[in-house]
Amino acid sequence: MEVKVRKATKEDLPAILTLIKELADYERAPDEVTISLKDLEEDGFGNSPLYEAFIAEKDDKMIVGMAFFYFAYSTWKGKCLYLEDIIVSENYRRQGIGKQLFDAVLEKAKDLGVKRLMWQVLEWNTPAIEFYKSKYGADISNEWLNGRILFE
Amino acid sequence: MEVKVRKATKEDLPAILTLIKELADYERAPDEVTISLKDLEEDGFGNSPLYEAFIAEKDDKMIVGMAFFYFAYSTWKGKCLYLEDIIVSENYRRQGIGKQLFDAVLEKAKDLGVKRLMWQVLEWNTPAIEFYKSKYGADISNEWLNGRILFE
Repeated sequence: MEVKVRKATKEDLPAILTLIKELADYERAPDEVTISLKDLEEDGFGNSPLYEAFIAEKDDKMIVGMAFFYFAYSTWKGKCLYLEDIIVSENYRRQGIGKQLFDAVLEKAKDLGVKRLMWQVLEWNTPAIEFYKSKYGADISNEWLNGRILFE
Repeated sequence: MEVKVRKATKEDLPAILTLIKELADYERAPDEVTISLKDLEEDGFGNSPLYEAFIAEKDDKMIVGMAFFYFAYSTWKGKCLYLEDIIVSENYRRQGIGKQLFDAVLEKAKDLGVKRLMWQVLEWNTPAIEFYKSKYGADISNEWLNGRILFE
């Protein structure tokens, strides 16, 4: 099965939202997804887009995965890219589609001339951690904790 | 001593860069700061600003602290604000200036209607962690590790 990765358009957003919800269901947190199609449209395809996405598409145009990223900024280095999510639909996992998506984002980061590509990985997700280290020489650090205040 | 917090302008960038470098010196990593004044100007005050900053200013206009933040995005929630750094010059610490800056960013996050304010804190920085928890009811999580690939 051949899967192609391309930049997402506004028309892909319903499929992207389906992938987001599929992952939340899988993680048993369906109620955590409060984002709407309208939010995704306004925030990604308005005057100042806040994110960009790639999708992984089969020959028959079915969308089976996506990568979601945005500009971040380091006071030490400058412009960076933050990879928020890579999601591959359950039936299409373990076929290298996640790697195709990651590689596309890595390529994008190089094209943009950013200083770093950054992301987060769950601390118990040893296969992913080993993958990033061995394939990409990535630096995986447990030095920092995430702080957050929710407004909902 | 009264310190006022206001939005940073382009003219404040030299003082902001000095604060960034002061912190890097303090952390014994002076060579890690590769960002230039030009980067900060272009990325913060061009057509699509990638960050925003607040500065803390004394009566005599001396800049003694800054907060540096940008839009982030959650696929579950939507628009968020990420607080990259709060820096208070060494001689002015322990006087509540960091809290003034944090409160200003929190206010900004509410004004913008974002879903979350997010930041990171070093895992050994117990006083800061306790401060965020007790004063703001913040959620501090060690569930995620930071991954990154550097392009320098």
